[in-house]
Amino acid sequence: MIRGIPSTMNDDYQLNMTRIIQHAAKIYPKREIASRTMAGMFRYNYAKAYERICAIANALEDLGIKAGDVVGIMGFNTHRFYESYFSVPGLGAALLELNMRLPPADLSYVAEHSGAKALFVDDLLLPMAEMLAQQHEFEFFVVMSDRKVETKLDPVYSYEELVERSKKEREWEEIDEKSTATICYTSGTTGKPKGVYYSHRSIYLHAWGGVANLKIGTEDCVMQIVPMFHANGWGGHIGGTMVGAKLVFPGFFTLQNADLLVNLIIEEGVTATNAAPVILIPMLEYLRKIEPKPNLEGLRIGSGASEPPVAMMKGFAEFGVEIIHAYGATETSPLVTLNFVKPGLELSEEEYWELKRYQGLPVLGVEVKVVDANGNELPWDGKSMGELWIKGLWIAKEYYDDERTKDSFVDGWWKSGDVAVITPEGYVKVVDRVKDVIKSGGEWISSVDLENYLMAHPAVYEACVIAVEHPKWQERPIAIIVLKPDYRDKVTKEEIREFLMQRFAKWQLPDDIIFVNEIPKTSVGKFDKKLLRERYRKYLIEKVK
Amino acid sequence: MIRGIPSTMNDDYQLNMTRIIQHAAKIYPKREIASRTMAGMFRYNYAKAYERICAIANALEDLGIKAGDVVGIMGFNTHRFYESYFSVPGLGAALLELNMRLPPADLSYVAEHSGAKALFVDDLLLPMAEMLAQQHEFEFFVVMSDRKVETKLDPVYSYEELVERSKKEREWEEIDEKSTATICYTSGTTGKPKGVYYSHRSIYLHAWGGVANLKIGTEDCVMQIVPMFHANGWGGHIGGTMVGAKLVFPGFFTLQNADLLVNLIIEEGVTATNAAPVILIPMLEYLRKIEPKPNLEGLRIGSGASEPPVAMMKGFAEFGVEIIHAYGATETSPLVTLNFVKPGLELSEEEYWELKRYQGLPVLGVEVKVVDANGNELPWDGKSMGELWIKGLWIAKEYYDDERTKDSFVDGWWKSGDVAVITPEGYVKVVDRVKDVIKSGGEWISSVDLENYLMAHPAVYEACVIAVEHPKWQERPIAIIVLKPDYRDKVTKEEIREFLMQRFAKWQLPDDIIFVNEIPKTSVGKFDKKLLRERYRKYLIEKVK
Repeated sequence: MIRGIPSTMNDDYQLNMTRIIQHAAKIYPKREIASRTMAGMFRYNYAKAYERICAIANALEDLGIKAGDVVGIMGFNTHRFYESYFSVPGLGAALLELNMRLPPADLSYVAEHSGAKALFVDDLLLPMAEMLAQQHEFEFFVVMSDRKVETKLDPVYSYEELVERSKKEREWEEIDEKSTATICYTSGTTGKPKGVYYSHRSIYLHAWGGVANLKIGTEDCVMQIVPMFHANGWGGHIGGTMVGAKLVFPGFFTLQNADLLVNLIIEEGVTATNAAPVILIPMLEYLRKIEPKPNLEGLRIGSGASEPPVAMMKGFAEFGVEIIHAYGATETSPLVTLNFVKPGLELSEEEYWELKRYQGLPVLGVEVKVVDANGNELPWDGKSMGELWIKGLWIAKEYYDDERTKDSFVDGWWKSGDVAVITPEGYVKVVDRVKDVIKSGGEWISSVDLENYLMAHPAVYEACVIAVEHPKWQERPIAIIVLKPDYRDKVTKEEIREFLMQRFAKWQLPDDIIFVNEIPKTSVGKFDKKLLRERYRKYLIEKVK
Repeated sequence: MIRGIPSTMNDDYQLNMTRIIQHAAKIYPKREIASRTMAGMFRYNYAKAYERICAIANALEDLGIKAGDVVGIMGFNTHRFYESYFSVPGLGAALLELNMRLPPADLSYVAEHSGAKALFVDDLLLPMAEMLAQQHEFEFFVVMSDRKVETKLDPVYSYEELVERSKKEREWEEIDEKSTATICYTSGTTGKPKGVYYSHRSIYLHAWGGVANLKIGTEDCVMQIVPMFHANGWGGHIGGTMVGAKLVFPGFFTLQNADLLVNLIIEEGVTATNAAPVILIPMLEYLRKIEPKPNLEGLRIGSGASEPPVAMMKGFAEFGVEIIHAYGATETSPLVTLNFVKPGLELSEEEYWELKRYQGLPVLGVEVKVVDANGNELPWDGKSMGELWIKGLWIAKEYYDDERTKDSFVDGWWKSGDVAVITPEGYVKVVDRVKDVIKSGGEWISSVDLENYLMAHPAVYEACVIAVEHPKWQERPIAIIVLKPDYRDKVTKEEIREFLMQRFAKWQLPDDIIFVNEIPKTSVGKFDKKLLRERYRKYLIEKVK
């Protein structure tokens, strides 16, 4: 790194969380925050939120929490979780956002590994906290509740009583921007969770990037649907605070409560939110049932976690809603790409919607590249398939105290495990997971591409493409297909093969197509490719014999 | 400063200028940049601009420029000046933006004080450069021109020849974000210019703040009207680059060329620009002459340097143009406040326009306070008048190698020299300059407020209010008034006094009103308050005797 003349600017003025909430409280004191609790809708504003944040920080300090400590939190998206984003980091401590959906063994691993000293918990989750308390020793607990609750946790404090009895103002110390403010652990499917420790700097720059790219302003109303323990809830509530937008927290809900979210959008006047297609699809279904048809013109929804179906994006467009595909992961804060259709592309309507499915354009502050198996960068030609590597202002450079860092990071790049192509216009399209892609000779073949196309065949009910060993090409694809009942024994391998040839080159076609009655699934309902690969590993080799 | 747990994020990934242009060149390669030169409209794009930036950086390196060096530039707003914003800082060197309107003695002081090694100069400004070259020894010169020119400068290179002969790509080294990227010297009315050295970090965060607050996107077309040597041209071209907006550089123009700017807005489809009222007023006049009436719906203009007249803002609104009052100075990069009317204020139309004249709300990343003569913070009550102090991510903390730093900075706060009030809603209103405000006992009286109100009296042609010595109150105001010819000798002091009493408290009224035939002016046409204060200094003391 080279150094020029030291500047005369205040370059030691730190990017930190405290400044964000102080700014909102001073400049947008009366702007509303609405939080759906078990006791009904709680409404207050930035000035009041700041007072409560001061109070909780003062209380935590009295209870012995100091810079460098870790405070866990297990809760839903409410104003109390929101306040914790500022009260805990404001002390120089770190907020550990526990994912209550993790298996208990993983939860206790996370508590132990991070050395959490205290735990904030929503009353609804007390049983889970009581279980966790048997695995990891916390110094104290704080229950977030609107009512009196019974618990075995000890010593235990009521969040509201701490607010009540503590001073509502505070002189905050300046915090080094490279200090950890919040912590999320990945919920990887294999092995123990891995710790991503977000800095004040990375959270600030990430959220401000979201504000700039999504054009969020104080006139907006931002609803926080994504759980705040998933990569800081994608930063929506932080960005909203930066510009003094109205905030809405939906509290506890499940995938069955899409109606509740839609009603909040309409009643509170939400103009910006983030969510995954898994919840957006039932939201759209509910939206279609409302009479008269609602007009949600101006609402932008960042959609991530999986590819947004075109039908879903078109469906929302009928209500005036724009779906913006966003891509990222816990390791990336998460914003890596956003899908904006650039001016001057000259697309047909079909091409437009096809492009909207892509992961999108890398945002300023983040660099991406696709690399081959040897780590060599591949061209942005829309064809060269490689692992997507990511680097930037809010991208992890390691896992906390974890030997697996060396498997996932190289020279500041995070190896995403996703296989992607990048178009000449800079659009990233993820085509597979590295572990599922077929490495045939020097070329990579996307199992997902083949599967998606196969699923479009009228006779196909389910299709799964996996790599199996091959004596010459190392790996070759085979397709495992379940036909729809009406088509069983009526469709041949050759017909399927010809169908695929309309889209794929010959070398990309599966070496064999196997019809089965059922494809084995994992506990979350995905194809169990690991089992299938095991089962068919020697299939082609034996066939050749 | 307290430190927490070191994060796992890439907090050493530097905020710097090179990343901005690289991002634009990769993600928005074909987006247009239009530059008005003496040879006509030059059109290219971010990909081509980046190649030329690489070429100039390579050429400068061959000529011996390295990290820590200073390269001066004297030019108008063209693509070449724009390119220099990246080529020079990309080497770790600093771009010294010379204000060609400074007196020659000040220009040579700036060149000497900064130790500039080389000078880029527009061909139109060669005579000025030749003069400067006699005062300060440069190692070499680069002439920015579309034609062959004769010059006494030696050794001299042609910018275009350097581009031509140099490699169009480059591996850039990582630069410490706290290194100086560009330099502007203030053009203070008293004393030598003072050096403000902007860091890569401060420029990046400032420009990104502009993008977020003004909602600039790639679909925008940004015209750079403000000279790029005035506080980095307020950062418009940098923010535009960050999001890949179309850029327009108007080249050489004077205040008489308002038509040229308006025509560019219409022809190029400009949607965002910055300018001072001094040029916006004639632009509006020209706009009104165009048939058929142009529709500029969507155009936002940041207006700074002086308060935008309501008539001007209303005039632009008739064409669909929004004027956004912005406030700042060389020391503040310059963005301190932006005037947005917050939701929920419930204003009458008159109040709305009155509010739009205010300097506006501090943006995220900047703190402001008003302080009394002892540096004690005053309340945000819209009444308490004090000096406006400013601190933040892109605010200077000192002047470069200058003893006057101690007069202008305290604990990281820059003392703006402006007297302001801040409303309970956070709106800053500048009411005077500290040197012109009347310090009467413990209270401050705004000379500007009194002047503005006096000027509204039908008989008053010009009014100037100054502080003069007072035996009891230290200072008291007196008003010096020129009546319109028709009213001379027909209006009494008492009538003027009664007029003022409609608006001001008794203690704020001038102790005397003096009718004169002419008020002395400075070379730039402002009231010469220094001379007047000198002339009337003992006026009240002698009167009391």
